[in-house]
Amino acid sequence: MPRSPFEWIEEQARARARAGLVRTLRPRPADSALLDLAGNDYLGLARHPEVTEGAARAARTWGAGATGSRLVSGSTELHAELELELAEFCGFEAALVLSSGYAANLAAVTALAPHGSLIVSDAGNHASLIDGCRLARGTTQVVAHADPDAVRKALDTRTGPAIVVSDTVFSVDGDAAPLRALAAACREAGTPPGEADGTREPGASGASGRSGAGLLLDDAHGLGVVGEGGRGAAWAAGLAGAPDVVTTVTLSKSLGSQGGAVLGPAHVIDHLVNAARTFIFDTGLAPAAAGAALAALRLLRGEPQRAARARAVATALYERLTAEGLEAVRPDAAVVSVRAPSPEQALRWAARCRAAGLAVGCFRPPSVPDGVSRLRLTARADLTDEQLDRAVNVLTEARR
Amino acid sequence: MPRSPFEWIEEQARARARAGLVRTLRPRPADSALLDLAGNDYLGLARHPEVTEGAARAARTWGAGATGSRLVSGSTELHAELELELAEFCGFEAALVLSSGYAANLAAVTALAPHGSLIVSDAGNHASLIDGCRLARGTTQVVAHADPDAVRKALDTRTGPAIVVSDTVFSVDGDAAPLRALAAACREAGTPPGEADGTREPGASGASGRSGAGLLLDDAHGLGVVGEGGRGAAWAAGLAGAPDVVTTVTLSKSLGSQGGAVLGPAHVIDHLVNAARTFIFDTGLAPAAAGAALAALRLLRGEPQRAARARAVATALYERLTAEGLEAVRPDAAVVSVRAPSPEQALRWAARCRAAGLAVGCFRPPSVPDGVSRLRLTARADLTDEQLDRAVNVLTEARR
Ligand SMILES: Cc1ncc(COP(=O)(O)O)c(C=O)c1O
Ligand SMILES: Cc1ncc(COP(=O)(O)O)c(C=O)c1O
Repeated sequence: MPRSPFEWIEEQARARARAGLVRTLRPRPADSALLDLAGNDYLGLARHPEVTEGAARAARTWGAGATGSRLVSGSTELHAELELELAEFCGFEAALVLSSGYAANLAAVTALAPHGSLIVSDAGNHASLIDGCRLARGTTQVVAHADPDAVRKALDTRTGPAIVVSDTVFSVDGDAAPLRALAAACREAGTPPGEADGTREPGASGASGRSGAGLLLDDAHGLGVVGEGGRGAAWAAGLAGAPDVVTTVTLSKSLGSQGGAVLGPAHVIDHLVNAARTFIFDTGLAPAAAGAALAALRLLRGEPQRAARARAVATALYERLTAEGLEAVRPDAAVVSVRAPSPEQALRWAARCRAAGLAVGCFRPPSVPDGVSRLRLTARADLTDEQLDRAVNVLTEARR
Repeated sequence: MPRSPFEWIEEQARARARAGLVRTLRPRPADSALLDLAGNDYLGLARHPEVTEGAARAARTWGAGATGSRLVSGSTELHAELELELAEFCGFEAALVLSSGYAANLAAVTALAPHGSLIVSDAGNHASLIDGCRLARGTTQVVAHADPDAVRKALDTRTGPAIVVSDTVFSVDGDAAPLRALAAACREAGTPPGEADGTREPGASGASGRSGAGLLLDDAHGLGVVGEGGRGAAWAAGLAGAPDVVTTVTLSKSLGSQGGAVLGPAHVIDHLVNAARTFIFDTGLAPAAAGAALAALRLLRGEPQRAARARAVATALYERLTAEGLEAVRPDAAVVSVRAPSPEQALRWAARCRAAGLAVGCFRPPSVPDGVSRLRLTARADLTDEQLDRAVNVLTEARR
């Protein structure tokens, strides 16, 4: 018998152990007493009875699985209903539901960046967008984080179609992308040089002109939190429904379920149906997940104050932690990121919080490309003031 | 305002329309009267009351969503239970559950093919394996379909670790991969030249030797259908639990739910937890999907004859269709592929079936890389003899 083909894995495992970077799964019980500031259930809907009943009802009505690709047997009227209401809520013409937010991002980037095109991607983008760039046939230029001038420069180099890709709210630090400036950069890219700033006569370059760049926004952490009643970051920036804007969302955060969607002009969505491999060759989203997301969406529509409450809790958390001398990023949505001095100290800090009954996220390399370890806290619309007090106390005490 | 950045999409859409290759979604009602030979619900479990109740109960107990990455808040004891029982059932040391079979394949290929490694990939592999190869840092060599000699030759060129990647049952034609011969090729690659066939003295190349290639099998269409009681193709080939074999499965076909899993040696699964981006950066599988899959797995364990029945129905379908003069591929599992003369005729044929109450899959370019259009029929363990008669009649009539 030859040696194991996976010996190289052991070496990597030893290196990880030496660096204190081993990750292990810690399954939680159903009745966990921990106060959860780690999950992305921003509106507290994952366990809302109307949402879990939405899941249960859908499983009974439609079956536990979709049974096939959305193009074969996997499209139910429930999927269509969810797509209609999602598009309407977020202000887009059409929507396409996929099995995860990850799959939605892979679908959108690959389908919108054909051979010969340019993808301009923010350095802080989520792993799923990065993987989308790697899978796409276009060429990727990574630009500095939240830097519209860098985007503009990158767009100048293009020789074919181009898209600019960005998280709306960055997943690790919770900071917002400069959406209006990004949209302006995309649109200027379609104007002959000089025309945008008035230094050149309009139309001087001939009637055909250049097309602008498309703007692809991942609103995973914006939907349900940002914009009027949680309609998302594109809505808040006045970009929802624009012919040059496509947004992806996930159903797994504010909507408390699983799945993802791409929102945009109808002809772009039709294109994805025909071209996006993670849509075509993947089983449709389970009816229970679609039913839960639809129930959550309807709850949010009926209780728009949930979005504002999630933001207010985040701001309060940030203000109280910084008043205690912690270094945190001012939240633009519901994510509050707190700096830790080192990976080891981040881990110890998180462990002490857990021992004191508080679950927080702990982000260390290689999950954080800048190498800075953080605790990642998530505000929830359903946190009470008392729970907020407790969280701040535990975090402050556990730091020492 | 510049021209639309998505104008190129319109050109592609027109080309698709001219070629008759436009795909559209056709949402089905909950009470569809169609006889379904299109979905992958091979054991008829997606609507089984114990399975849908498994989904409903899990949503109520654990919430509608996992709320975060499996590494943060998204691992429940339900996920752990499913992993334990899946691994045990399929005969592997450990399992890792992901949000889809697609994500499981991306995770397995990327995590097992580091920089400097070789991936040998069957030309008929599923899109998700192909995307895994494209995302992985290793170099891919695509080899002829089901050809162990081609695999051997490709492995000869390697300069580092290597994996051989194959569907166990190919998704379009339903034919089986030559698993034992593939495993032999992988293992021979670890033996110095000549030693494997006895023409060279064992150990002559020194104690350290070469490691063999790993074998990564996608058992999406094998689980629940192939092997004793549906334990899968790796089990049937005597490869389950081998130190050099890793298998992926989906929970969305025989188990009637959604999700995917990677099965293999515990240290390989630990490696995926630490290295697989579609695991680390994706929200955990929804509890309802995990609960449904677990209920389906337990049903299958209690009623192992379901697997044999699915295979018997497929064989009967094949024999009766070929007796009617149709050209089909002898099924190795539950998929029966029937040739159509052209994309247009495939589409018309499928439409006539649908009009007569029978849903069948219709695969046309670009979904079929060889350009041959087919009807794809799936056998189900719960099809009655009467339904089988009806299906054969409709298919034969509709051909004309
Ligand atoms: C910014 C961002 N995009 C996409 C995703 C992927 O969404 P999902 O987990 O629903 O697959 C996540 C998180 O998981 C995310 O944080
Ligand atoms: C061979 C094969 N592998 C993987 C997948 C992906 O699994 P899932 O649909 O559960 O994501 C499929 C089908 O969808 C498949 O046919």
